[in-house]
Amino acid sequence: MRDKVKIAAVQMNPAIMQNSKNLDKILSEAKNAATNGAELVVFPECALPGYVYSSREEAMPFMETVPGPATDRLAARCRELGVHIVTGLLEKDGNRCFNAAVLIGPEGLIGKYRKNHLPFLGVDRFLDRGDRPFEVHKTPIGNFGIHICYDCNFPESARVMALLGADILVLPTNWPQGRGKVAKYVVNTRAYENKVHLVAVNRVGEERGTRFIGTSKIINAWGDTLAQAGVDEEQILYAEVSLSEARQKHVVFKPGEFEMDFIRDRRPELYGKIAE
Amino acid sequence: MRDKVKIAAVQMNPAIMQNSKNLDKILSEAKNAATNGAELVVFPECALPGYVYSSREEAMPFMETVPGPATDRLAARCRELGVHIVTGLLEKDGNRCFNAAVLIGPEGLIGKYRKNHLPFLGVDRFLDRGDRPFEVHKTPIGNFGIHICYDCNFPESARVMALLGADILVLPTNWPQGRGKVAKYVVNTRAYENKVHLVAVNRVGEERGTRFIGTSKIINAWGDTLAQAGVDEEQILYAEVSLSEARQKHVVFKPGEFEMDFIRDRRPELYGKIAE
Repeated sequence: MRDKVKIAAVQMNPAIMQNSKNLDKILSEAKNAATNGAELVVFPECALPGYVYSSREEAMPFMETVPGPATDRLAARCRELGVHIVTGLLEKDGNRCFNAAVLIGPEGLIGKYRKNHLPFLGVDRFLDRGDRPFEVHKTPIGNFGIHICYDCNFPESARVMALLGADILVLPTNWPQGRGKVAKYVVNTRAYENKVHLVAVNRVGEERGTRFIGTSKIINAWGDTLAQAGVDEEQILYAEVSLSEARQKHVVFKPGEFEMDFIRDRRPELYGKIAE
Repeated sequence: MRDKVKIAAVQMNPAIMQNSKNLDKILSEAKNAATNGAELVVFPECALPGYVYSSREEAMPFMETVPGPATDRLAARCRELGVHIVTGLLEKDGNRCFNAAVLIGPEGLIGKYRKNHLPFLGVDRFLDRGDRPFEVHKTPIGNFGIHICYDCNFPESARVMALLGADILVLPTNWPQGRGKVAKYVVNTRAYENKVHLVAVNRVGEERGTRFIGTSKIINAWGDTLAQAGVDEEQILYAEVSLSEARQKHVVFKPGEFEMDFIRDRRPELYGKIAE
C-alpha cells in the first residue's frame, strides 16, 4: 500500500458571480500544484460562485448541477494531471439548493457532500441543509472525508468520518472575521482527537463587507500544523502526510506503562444523548 | 438568579500514599480560596491518594468509600466555609475500584463521578471503568458537569454534559508529559464548541518517574483562557464566570446577517454512528 500523499491547499480569493473566471483559476492552480507534486488539491468553500449572496434567487444562476459542465471540466483536468481535486460550489438539484463540495479524481466524479450544518450567514441563510449522512470515499491515495466550514464546529462531523475510516479530512471553508478560534485551535483539535490528517482551506479577500481570514492549514494526525497560510494573500500550501500514521490509532508512549487509543478507548454505550 | 460565580483552581502536588496529609492540604487550601471569595474550589485528579501506583493491591489501602470519612471531613469544611468543592480520589465500592471525583457543597455530598475513559497509565491500568452515564448536578451556584483527565480527549464527554444543561465543566486531571496539546488547545475547544465554562485543574511534581505538567486553566464559554498556571509550581488560579453567558447558546454577531447556535444548529439525526 502507498503511504505518503502530497497535499496542496489553494487559498484563493474567488470573485462573486464569476464562476467561469473562478473555474479557470481553479484549473490553472490545480496544474500549478500538480507540477509541484501534489496528488490531492483542495480549494475553498464556494470557490466557484462566491459566498455573500443576498437571496436564494440571486444565487440561483451561479449554482451547478453535479455532475454538470463545471465538474466535467474539473474531471478532464484531473485525468490530464492524474490528481484528485476537492472544491466547494453551490449545487442545485431540482428545487433544492445546497452548499456542496465535490471530490473528483482521474476517473471522474467520485463523490459530493452537502453541508449539513448551516450558520445564519451569507448564502447559507437561503439554502437547504444537507440531506445525507457524512461519508468516507476510498481512493487510491487514501480515504477522504469531506465537511465544510461550520461543520467543523460540531465535533460530531469529524468523529463520524473518523469512525467510518477517514485518513484525511478535507475542510473547504469561508471563515469570516469572528471565526479565528476555529482556525487557531479547533481544527487542530479535530485532527488530534480523531488521529486523522486535516486540510482546512479558507478563502481570502472581502465580499460585500465580509472579510475572510485565510489561515488555511494542513494538520497531521498528531494535531501538528505542517503548513499554515497568511491572513490576506492568495497562497498554495504543500505538505506530505502518511496514511499509516492516521490508521495506527493505538499509540504506545512507553510499552506496558503508557498507551492510549483514542478510538478503542471510547465508550459509545454512554453517548446516546448525542444522537437524540 | 445569581449570575457571577468565582472559581478557584488549586494546582497542587499530592504525595502518593499520603491521603491524610493531602486531605489536610485540600482543607487548608479550600479555606485559603474561600477567604479570597471563591465559591467553587477545584482540586486535581487523585488529589487524595496520588496516581502512579504499580498495582491494584498497592492502591487499595488508599481508596475511599463515598460517602466516607474523607468526604465527611470535606463536607464539614464546605459547610463551615459555604463553598462547593470538587476533588479527585480513588473510590472502592465492594470489589470494584474507580478513579472518581466528588462534588460536595454546604449541604453535604451532592454527587460523584467515576472516570469513564481510562488510559493505560498509572493507577488507571488497574481500575474498573466508570459504570454510569455523565451527569449534570444542579446547585445554587450553577449546573456542574464533572469529567476527569482523559475523558476530555473524547468530545462526547463534554458534549453529553452540555446537552444535559451544564454551565461549568469541571476537569480534575493528572496530565503527564506527552499531554501538552490537551492542555494547550483541546480544553479550549471543549469550552468553545459547547459554549460552557471549563475548569481544568492539573497537578505538578513528579511521582515514580512520571512528571506532571501543570498548566491548569479556567476557560470561559467563548473558549478564552481567563487564568492559566505554570508548569511546575503549586498555585491557586481565580476567575469569575457568568452563568448566563454559558446559557445563551444563540450568538448574534450581526442581526439578520450573522447568527449561530452551536447547540440548536446540530444535526443529531446524522450522528447515530457515534453511539453505536
